[in-house]
Amino acid sequence: MITIGNELLIGKILNTNMQWLTSAITELGGNVVRVTTVGDYVENIASALLEAFNRKADFIITCGGLGPTFDDKTLEALSKAVNVPLELDGVALRLMKKSYKFRHNSDDERYELTPSRLKMARLPYGAEPLYNPVGSASGVYLKYSGTKIVALPGVPVEMKTIFKEHVAPIIRDLVGDIFRTEGSVKVTEIEESNIAPLIDEVMNEFQDVYVKSHPKREPKLWLELHFSSVSNNKEIAEKSVKEAMSRLSKLIINHGGRVEPII
Amino acid sequence: MITIGNELLIGKILNTNMQWLTSAITELGGNVVRVTTVGDYVENIASALLEAFNRKADFIITCGGLGPTFDDKTLEALSKAVNVPLELDGVALRLMKKSYKFRHNSDDERYELTPSRLKMARLPYGAEPLYNPVGSASGVYLKYSGTKIVALPGVPVEMKTIFKEHVAPIIRDLVGDIFRTEGSVKVTEIEESNIAPLIDEVMNEFQDVYVKSHPKREPKLWLELHFSSVSNNKEIAEKSVKEAMSRLSKLIINHGGRVEPII
Repeated sequence: MITIGNELLIGKILNTNMQWLTSAITELGGNVVRVTTVGDYVENIASALLEAFNRKADFIITCGGLGPTFDDKTLEALSKAVNVPLELDGVALRLMKKSYKFRHNSDDERYELTPSRLKMARLPYGAEPLYNPVGSASGVYLKYSGTKIVALPGVPVEMKTIFKEHVAPIIRDLVGDIFRTEGSVKVTEIEESNIAPLIDEVMNEFQDVYVKSHPKREPKLWLELHFSSVSNNKEIAEKSVKEAMSRLSKLIINHGGRVEPII
Repeated sequence: MITIGNELLIGKILNTNMQWLTSAITELGGNVVRVTTVGDYVENIASALLEAFNRKADFIITCGGLGPTFDDKTLEALSKAVNVPLELDGVALRLMKKSYKFRHNSDDERYELTPSRLKMARLPYGAEPLYNPVGSASGVYLKYSGTKIVALPGVPVEMKTIFKEHVAPIIRDLVGDIFRTEGSVKVTEIEESNIAPLIDEVMNEFQDVYVKSHPKREPKLWLELHFSSVSNNKEIAEKSVKEAMSRLSKLIINHGGRVEPII
């Protein structure tokens, strides 16, 4: 995933799009390997794309930089990275007009195709626009030597709408039937460094369960232990997580710790 | 910047460390070019580090993966990326004991050096530990062929404490006297695509000012225009931002838009 915008690199806003997208992809059974955040510069966006091509990513999702202003550079960077020209796309143009009429509830035929609006319909050659009913900028879908690429706008409601309608089905197709199960417990009265070898023991016993410890500080120091398992069999995943939670809880209690469920 | 943790890639938590750090660095006059988020895998952390070396980054800050559990892999990845072995560091050991005594208000000499704790004191050869008074894992400072590298823990209070004490002075030294000025206005009653050419005009006139438009939707559609300027002369930066804001506001009003200050 590539999230784009200077506002993210100066800490002006939290990267909530990253959390929403990674969470939605995980829920669909997808596995996000890396998220790169770059500013509004063609060179930097293109270099993040090229690095993902080099890593043979199956799927790249970019978020941000599709709007009408000069600093919306994602389409230019995409065309540079995949080495095809930008061309005015008739379908994108039609979708933009359709969305405008839909949003303004108007049949106004005088909808002006200013240079700033035309820019949003200039797609990398071979790309397909993804209809955006809640904004002007279409999403973009493109394939490039084994990698699927989707570009989404950064405005959250537009990003979410296009993701649900167009991107979720592609991911479902890619991953097939995959189930992810999770569970957490709260641990106190024992140090994280004393739990570390117990986690190792349980993860050795349950090879399909991933256990991660998260130190928390509210109101005072405690540990969340988070268990997860991914499988094409839902019952197996659930059984493994349940058994691993119970096994590790017993070990921790035997070592003087206290374990509570997190609901 | 490299933020590390599977919990970030499954959308379990928001990347608040990224926002805090980018904001703090920006305030010090630093320029964050890229943030990469990877999971708890030596290969992935090391490859993010190597890509940053290839881009000739001046400064790399990693955040996360310094704790005692098996999935804390940052030191191993660092040693792999810079190609030096991990070695038990006497100073790191001493700092860990000091922090333990400080936090537990104890003179207990029996502080047990379990393998999990020793792991946190095994640093890449040549690295320097950065004292962590609020947790076990020291930060780590390392230089590698022109690049400064700091590794910080992912627990927010520990990350912030080490950053303020040890990292901020390094950044201040690197950037010298730099001042950053910002300002924002709220714009309504005009479409973003109609403002785009006006922003271009003003950014051409004020080459030292960066203007970015952020579409917002609460309670209904409006645009935030964010102005920023960086200079070694505070008055010049403030003057430029003020004049650019005033110039663009006038242009927008002339085109039928409405401009309000954001306080």
